[in-house]
Amino acid sequence: MSETLDLTIELIRRESVTPEDAGCMDLVIERLTPLGFRAEWLNFGDTKNIWLRRGEAVPLFVFLGHTDVVPPGPLEDWSSPPFEPEIRDGRLYGRGAADMKSSVAAMTTALQRFVVRHPDHKGSIAVLLTSDEEGSAHDGVVKVVDVLTSRGTAIDWCLVGEPSSFDLLGDVIRVGRRGSLCGVLRVLGVQGHVAYPHKADNPIHRFAPALHELTTEVWDEGNEFFPPTSFQVSNIRAGTGADNVIPGRLEMSFNFRFSTELTVDDIQRRVEAILDRHGLRYELSWRLSGAPFLTRESELVEATRDAIARITGRSTRPDTGGGTSDGRFIAPTGAQVVELGPLNGSIHKIDEHVDIADIDALSAIYELILDNLLAKS
Amino acid sequence: MSETLDLTIELIRRESVTPEDAGCMDLVIERLTPLGFRAEWLNFGDTKNIWLRRGEAVPLFVFLGHTDVVPPGPLEDWSSPPFEPEIRDGRLYGRGAADMKSSVAAMTTALQRFVVRHPDHKGSIAVLLTSDEEGSAHDGVVKVVDVLTSRGTAIDWCLVGEPSSFDLLGDVIRVGRRGSLCGVLRVLGVQGHVAYPHKADNPIHRFAPALHELTTEVWDEGNEFFPPTSFQVSNIRAGTGADNVIPGRLEMSFNFRFSTELTVDDIQRRVEAILDRHGLRYELSWRLSGAPFLTRESELVEATRDAIARITGRSTRPDTGGGTSDGRFIAPTGAQVVELGPLNGSIHKIDEHVDIADIDALSAIYELILDNLLAKS
Ligand SMILES: [Zn+2]
Ligand SMILES: [Zn+2]
Repeated sequence: MSETLDLTIELIRRESVTPEDAGCMDLVIERLTPLGFRAEWLNFGDTKNIWLRRGEAVPLFVFLGHTDVVPPGPLEDWSSPPFEPEIRDGRLYGRGAADMKSSVAAMTTALQRFVVRHPDHKGSIAVLLTSDEEGSAHDGVVKVVDVLTSRGTAIDWCLVGEPSSFDLLGDVIRVGRRGSLCGVLRVLGVQGHVAYPHKADNPIHRFAPALHELTTEVWDEGNEFFPPTSFQVSNIRAGTGADNVIPGRLEMSFNFRFSTELTVDDIQRRVEAILDRHGLRYELSWRLSGAPFLTRESELVEATRDAIARITGRSTRPDTGGGTSDGRFIAPTGAQVVELGPLNGSIHKIDEHVDIADIDALSAIYELILDNLLAKS
Repeated sequence: MSETLDLTIELIRRESVTPEDAGCMDLVIERLTPLGFRAEWLNFGDTKNIWLRRGEAVPLFVFLGHTDVVPPGPLEDWSSPPFEPEIRDGRLYGRGAADMKSSVAAMTTALQRFVVRHPDHKGSIAVLLTSDEEGSAHDGVVKVVDVLTSRGTAIDWCLVGEPSSFDLLGDVIRVGRRGSLCGVLRVLGVQGHVAYPHKADNPIHRFAPALHELTTEVWDEGNEFFPPTSFQVSNIRAGTGADNVIPGRLEMSFNFRFSTELTVDDIQRRVEAILDRHGLRYELSWRLSGAPFLTRESELVEATRDAIARITGRSTRPDTGGGTSDGRFIAPTGAQVVELGPLNGSIHKIDEHVDIADIDALSAIYELILDNLLAKS
């Protein structure tokens, strides 16, 4: 059995439902500290964060990952227990198999081999793992970045192990992420009795044309790197529960996933313009959960592209789709950020799995990226 | 002090918050049984219903009323305690003063005077009082009508004491009521993550244009007797509460107050046509809480119009606005139904009140209606 597969299995056995780490980080520490990595805990609240660094020189290359997993859901729906990894038909099944314990294992074994071959590599290398990526993420990478920034530690290259691949390992890498902006809207009306609508002002009726417009608006066309900005209503609610009462207000929450074609300001102004044009009385609050970022052609993208081509023979496609990741906290510091990991088709689902062949291939790609960037010629 | 005012005060003192009667009906029974009215309790569940009838001949004239009142709301907001009737500036204050204990008192004293003057009146007279008009109304007049129907008792004329007047006593009488039809709609979508809207189907977005159309549709123009049919959404709800989840379904409840221009079938077909035109997947259920009814020009309307004119000098306006009343249960039996009572501006509110002068005038009008219909010439 390969060392990477072996470590992946050990990691899945540790039931690290977010924000638990359940001893996963210890397994990585055990393997890397003998090779000259210095381990530093940067825990906040319930969240464990480990910063393992080898050397102090620049440039600084960082592997970023998380050891927490989403809850398994109904256990009876799994073909084999989610925390008892099982190999069937060339696949390893278990919660976290793809998101992202195989990536964490691949980083670790790639580093073991690389450091043995290149004990005197250029710059320095770090591994940053958190146990709160799948949860609120309040006490995870965002806080570690604050600490690093306060120390003057700048990350040059950050490779995130999130499962970026679609059909074949390495077919897609993420070189950016859309921004995420949430809004909470309260439309104000006047409560009344359904028999006397002229004495009331139904906020559902008032809001209906504006809602129609918000849901059909084309916010942008996207660009070469980003799909068009998308607006989604996540919650809407009005009414007392009674059948004969016209409600006095309506509450709605919504989310924008937005491209680099729009700023937060643009979006806010356009939403308000629509609400104002329909003569609504309203209260509106906003929460930015991540600005969009983009790592255009760069040494990191090139090194990753080359490594994928040499190990798999594939030419990768840089992409910016999908959900947020902890890369959103690293990118604003000025680092180049690329995400590369296994196939994402089964993540967060019942019977999550990873192809066994991909685990070793991913470790080999990671190793070659290190070679491309840090090996002394 | 007038006998009608006196009885109104006695009735208000009895704290008959729906479905309580609190002894109100006993006060009426005490006064009417010595005059030849036979009292029959027709109680169902918590609800008291009294059927007091004098004679067996046709035609049958019925005074319809309720002794229950809506809850008083915050006691500290009242200028005087709601169940301690108080006279100030020519008005009697207390919960039920206008809706409808003054009417119940006025019916009672009108009957006392009329029967003394016309012990041998034409036809027969009944008083029907319930203690569940303001509540669910499940065990009130609707059940009594079932009993009467099963006995073959047909009501010819029904005068309901609901507060119909707007600015001056008798300025408006109700000769019909709009129908009330409730619907519950469930729009089906596909739940998903806001980052992957193409994998989901947001029912809020799908429904937005149909909602817009439903709220702006002109259902009819009303007619001589009815205002235009009105559609109101009372409740809408979609979403799991989470900001990043596209909901899988939307639920909405709504109410039609409809005129005699539309049938229940018309409304249902038109709503479904709108939903279908927008390609929605949905489930829809309906509940008819009352069909519209109308008592056009008739002996009862004429007798009421004449009595109002002679006592107040006013020409009354027949109207069909406002909420439902127990008249909706009587009208389908074929009876002529008219509603006449005091000013409705303060009903269901803090500091509910009635003008003292109106109490005696109302009793006089009721007496004259009896004269017009039942006195032997
Ligand atoms: Zn992940
Ligand atoms: Zn009433």
